[in-house]
Amino acid sequence: MTQTLPYSLLEALVGDEEVGALFSNEVELSALLRVEAALAQAEARVGLISDEAASRIAEACGAFQVDWGALAAGLAQDGVIVPAFVRQLRTAVGDAHAKAVHLGATSQDIIDTALMLRLRSVVEIFEHRLDALLHAFRALKDRDGATPLMAHTRMQQALPFVAADKIDTWLQPLERHREALQTLVPGLLVVQLGGPIGTRAEWKGHGDAVAIAMAEILGLSSAPSWHSQRDRIGEFAAFLSLLSGTLGKIGQDVALMAQNEVAEVRLATGGGSSAMPHKSNPVPAEVLVTLARFNAGLLGTLHQSLVHENERSGAAWTLEWMVLPQMIVATAAGLRHVQALVGSMSFSASTGRN
Amino acid sequence: MTQTLPYSLLEALVGDEEVGALFSNEVELSALLRVEAALAQAEARVGLISDEAASRIAEACGAFQVDWGALAAGLAQDGVIVPAFVRQLRTAVGDAHAKAVHLGATSQDIIDTALMLRLRSVVEIFEHRLDALLHAFRALKDRDGATPLMAHTRMQQALPFVAADKIDTWLQPLERHREALQTLVPGLLVVQLGGPIGTRAEWKGHGDAVAIAMAEILGLSSAPSWHSQRDRIGEFAAFLSLLSGTLGKIGQDVALMAQNEVAEVRLATGGGSSAMPHKSNPVPAEVLVTLARFNAGLLGTLHQSLVHENERSGAAWTLEWMVLPQMIVATAAGLRHVQALVGSMSFSASTGRN
Amino acid sequence: MTQTLPYSLLEALVGDEEVGALFSNEVELSALLRVEAALAQAEARVGLISDEAASRIAEACGAFQVDWGALAAGLAQDGVIVPAFVRQLRTAVGDAHAKAVHLGATSQDIIDTALMLRLRSVVEIFEHRLDALLHAFRALKDRDGATPLMAHTRMQQALPFVAADKIDTWLQPLERHREALQTLVPGLLVVQLGGPIGTRAEWKGHGDAVAIAMAEILGLSSAPSWHSQRDRIGEFAAFLSLLSGTLGKIGQDVALMAQNEVAEVRLATGGGSSAMPHKSNPVPAEVLVTLARFNAGLLGTLHQSLVHENERSGAAWTLEWMVLPQMIVATAAGLRHVQALVGSMSFSASTGRN
Amino acid sequence: MTQTLPYSLLEALVGDEEVGALFSNEVELSALLRVEAALAQAEARVGLISDEAASRIAEACGAFQVDWGALAAGLAQDGVIVPAFVRQLRTAVGDAHAKAVHLGATSQDIIDTALMLRLRSVVEIFEHRLDALLHAFRALKDRDGATPLMAHTRMQQALPFVAADKIDTWLQPLERHREALQTLVPGLLVVQLGGPIGTRAEWKGHGDAVAIAMAEILGLSSAPSWHSQRDRIGEFAAFLSLLSGTLGKIGQDVALMAQNEVAEVRLATGGGSSAMPHKSNPVPAEVLVTLARFNAGLLGTLHQSLVHENERSGAAWTLEWMVLPQMIVATAAGLRHVQALVGSMSFSASTGRN
Repeated sequence: MTQTLPYSLLEALVGDEEVGALFSNEVELSALLRVEAALAQAEARVGLISDEAASRIAEACGAFQVDWGALAAGLAQDGVIVPAFVRQLRTAVGDAHAKAVHLGATSQDIIDTALMLRLRSVVEIFEHRLDALLHAFRALKDRDGATPLMAHTRMQQALPFVAADKIDTWLQPLERHREALQTLVPGLLVVQLGGPIGTRAEWKGHGDAVAIAMAEILGLSSAPSWHSQRDRIGEFAAFLSLLSGTLGKIGQDVALMAQNEVAEVRLATGGGSSAMPHKSNPVPAEVLVTLARFNAGLLGTLHQSLVHENERSGAAWTLEWMVLPQMIVATAAGLRHVQALVGSMSFSASTGRN
Repeated sequence: MTQTLPYSLLEALVGDEEVGALFSNEVELSALLRVEAALAQAEARVGLISDEAASRIAEACGAFQVDWGALAAGLAQDGVIVPAFVRQLRTAVGDAHAKAVHLGATSQDIIDTALMLRLRSVVEIFEHRLDALLHAFRALKDRDGATPLMAHTRMQQALPFVAADKIDTWLQPLERHREALQTLVPGLLVVQLGGPIGTRAEWKGHGDAVAIAMAEILGLSSAPSWHSQRDRIGEFAAFLSLLSGTLGKIGQDVALMAQNEVAEVRLATGGGSSAMPHKSNPVPAEVLVTLARFNAGLLGTLHQSLVHENERSGAAWTLEWMVLPQMIVATAAGLRHVQALVGSMSFSASTGRN
Repeated sequence: MTQTLPYSLLEALVGDEEVGALFSNEVELSALLRVEAALAQAEARVGLISDEAASRIAEACGAFQVDWGALAAGLAQDGVIVPAFVRQLRTAVGDAHAKAVHLGATSQDIIDTALMLRLRSVVEIFEHRLDALLHAFRALKDRDGATPLMAHTRMQQALPFVAADKIDTWLQPLERHREALQTLVPGLLVVQLGGPIGTRAEWKGHGDAVAIAMAEILGLSSAPSWHSQRDRIGEFAAFLSLLSGTLGKIGQDVALMAQNEVAEVRLATGGGSSAMPHKSNPVPAEVLVTLARFNAGLLGTLHQSLVHENERSGAAWTLEWMVLPQMIVATAAGLRHVQALVGSMSFSASTGRN
Repeated sequence: MTQTLPYSLLEALVGDEEVGALFSNEVELSALLRVEAALAQAEARVGLISDEAASRIAEACGAFQVDWGALAAGLAQDGVIVPAFVRQLRTAVGDAHAKAVHLGATSQDIIDTALMLRLRSVVEIFEHRLDALLHAFRALKDRDGATPLMAHTRMQQALPFVAADKIDTWLQPLERHREALQTLVPGLLVVQLGGPIGTRAEWKGHGDAVAIAMAEILGLSSAPSWHSQRDRIGEFAAFLSLLSGTLGKIGQDVALMAQNEVAEVRLATGGGSSAMPHKSNPVPAEVLVTLARFNAGLLGTLHQSLVHENERSGAAWTLEWMVLPQMIVATAAGLRHVQALVGSMSFSASTGRN
């Protein structure tokens, strides 16, 4: 058997290469390294460590050779990757400055800030994709908007309207999601820095300054430590599910209009069947419905992780790790599919009421 | 057996009288009547019906004697209460102006707008309760903030801190929720007016004007018809679950700190046991956890209803009816319990690390 | 305004009178009384209390005049109704035998066993309804089975088949659910008796005998105390969601076949529209989809309550109270709607491939 | 940077190597090949294809060199891997017998049967792990059962009992799960064979015989085609969540008992902290809670996929693919963690009521 794929086959259908890559081991590690380097640089700025130490740490982060097996073993043992990662990084930095690595910080400071760096990329990608999608739907409306269709309510024919009316019901929530994404950013993309129990006491009065400097270095906003306050994550997850829900509604509409008996939408390319060569299945439309239902369910699961015990809940935090990346990738996959769908679809005049 | 309660007993624990009342049959009917009267008034303003008709409709709405049984039968038959309700209202208005009742509107216009009227009350109540809660937590912080406590991470003792640190982790997300509520309002509290298929064609060019007038009369914002665009509802539901989640986290912390072995929180009044008179159970704290998990799960369920088929989905819309009011009442119950909890709790100095 | 309904209007659509009544305050109280009487009778059998005491308790249970307000207040205070209920019952029994009331038991013994009494009724009702439904579908198959239809896969026409093929895909899972219900009963319908911490120590060696006697008196099976072991409840809830899911699939099929453009199913009575008199909406079919999605979501929520802390979790148990009755009533509503649907539907020959 | 891991780092914590491998691309492909070979062999038995064709197909399946890229592209296009896979297999078989490959079958026949082959392995692994777990808990009970502990209800100290009482509340549901697994098997592990629309018409009267032969060859049970009847999958998923829920309850108990202030459980090995060297975190206990909440939520999501449209729903089926393997792996991870936990834990005598 030939060499397998570097990903699960199913991702060809419901994954997203660009966004999925942000949650690869390599990109996660790279984000962790950027955060440790930024922490050191920030600490040097306020005089907690020497510039030399910060430089050495930055250098070591840049040239870091990871031992993946030891990271995995550390994660399995400690429930979080950071203790093992910091051990490796300290070794790479060398004895002279090992103590300056990760100074005052707790695992969650590093993991959460590294997440935020990747969420920033996610947001940028989604902004671009939403812009392209809005553009594509407006172009479709320009081209096909006058096509007479039959409106349907409660799964029954209602009254005639035109394709522009239908497309408007898709565009309007997408425009709101585009705006919501913009609105979310300043509150969402914040640095995490609290130290072991979130009080910043380890930085001896310089905690806020270190956090502000880190935020500036990393291009994030500043905020008090939010270790056990996961509303930002829960709110972003809600955005993901709302967007996926809108895409799912579009997919459901297309699948209904593409029914042979209705034939108000034609798709340039359909999915083939292993048993019925005559069929042309509205695969991307169906997948949009799948992804909407998937993300809706995962949202309910992720919100269970809002209930952190005390200053940090291993149980709730791990649940977040298991759910959030999936929701992001599913949303990205939806944006990918809907863009292809809108590019391949055309409206056909309704043959009127039966 | 004596006369029963007008509500399920369980509501004594997880219900909320003030907010629950907004979803009673009477208040729903009253909201429907206000919407029909406002629609008539708005239509009179733009000249679609006579002022006399609008006055007669307003009068009939004010004096309306409902036949509940017929409403229930109509709902069971039609899947929505409005057809039966409009029949009754037309009869009450009388032949002369019966046709002016509900002119151009569809059931969803009335139901959704009537929901918005009640959501406005919900928002106001939540604003007041959040203000009171923030005040109470700040007062608690002033009184007990210096009490030395032990921070706990991953269910283990971490390092000492003080009650003010703990309370800050509760206050900060509550402050964000308070602000989010404010931000939500203009986009959320909008009139619904679209006519049978959402195009406003029935108002012959005056649809936007009627919608704007209705919004003004009812104190809502104006927006294009959003029959099949349920992101507003989904977003509000996410807010409810985020708020409940924060309250659940507070409840979980209190339950953990009130453990006999930890004893960092004392509750003035605890729940009694039928078998163990010595016990004092942290009932409100537990209920906060319950309500958080309840709303988290319901949020995932409600987001399933974002996938409307075409111009209106009976299936998705009915699902929303079953879930949203429960989430609102559960959130209200949480706000009620947490307010009582903060009023009855005091911090006790940690006895240090074992 | 005339006297309102004794239930929320929405229940006319998604409620069930027969099954809903089992979760009314009155029937719950009545079940609690039967359990306390049975406990006393069982304790008399093994000699822990006198026959006279047991008789007096049975008499008081039979003539019990409840103070609902005090029960509600007790529930709000204690998080469970039993302490207040037992106080009232002890007063009703009188000083001579007050101590024999609720002897050795904990609140959960009474609540859970009283739930089981009602679950037994639920199971019986569901058995009858499933039998009637299977009968109705078989009759429909006999009558319309030869009608030529078009099979659809992935929302596209596939190949011709007949109505009997379609009905078989509905009958087969229903037959499995009917059998599963039978299989569930012995493990599900068990007495709960454990005393305050589930060890039966309060009955001084007679705990198992008391439990066995109670089970026999109440027509339940016997089992060790299962206070914090909620798998029985979780398994029954899964059954409810599986059944609702099958009904939702039937409803979805009917709604798709009843589309004007497809017209393979005709419904004798459809739902009316307030704006479009020509419409006939497949309301019961849509509601079946709603109820399936509702119960699926609630199942995920209920399974969160499997995580009980230690010997009893107030948080998890209360969550169960909020969710399980709703799931049962929704399932009952589905059985009610599908029975009406099958009675009102007929198949029409497919007009073949477009 | 050194070569990355062949899996997501997070799997070191919440994955399972043995069970996860069953859902790798390679093992999925291998299962598909076994199913196609078995189908051919079964068809040869009933005379639908020649023995020579079946032999050639078996040979080609055994030596199959897959083009992964083409499979992925086919999945992305068709929404299911089988059309592309069958094209490759027919080429491998050669012109003489290409038509005998996949004869009469539809994609779903192959995918679902291949899933069942892997579920059989899952069931076997779970049986072994549950047996080992029951054994370990019984041994723990033998060793530590007499240790005096404090029972806790509603997060408060209740009354003293012993470790054997606590362990019993863990063992009893595990024993039920072990038995339920056995009971599930005959109904769950069935062959899928229906042809394009589930009627077996393609096999010209021999469909049942082919299905029975396939089942025999593959070691599965026989059943009518169940393309759109997903209750088997939903029922197995419920089992997974029930089992995970029980493990989560155990994890929650251990995390509570391992609190420094309670100290009724000691763990031989704890997770380390990057900031607090003195800590020993109950990582496996926390992860059990995580996995329980994860699977509970996913169960609610998977049950959404019970609502298949007509003879096959691409949307619902794809949702099942996204959720079921995750649930299985999470359950396996739970079994792995709990086994380690029970091996590393010991009970300490309660220091009595404060």
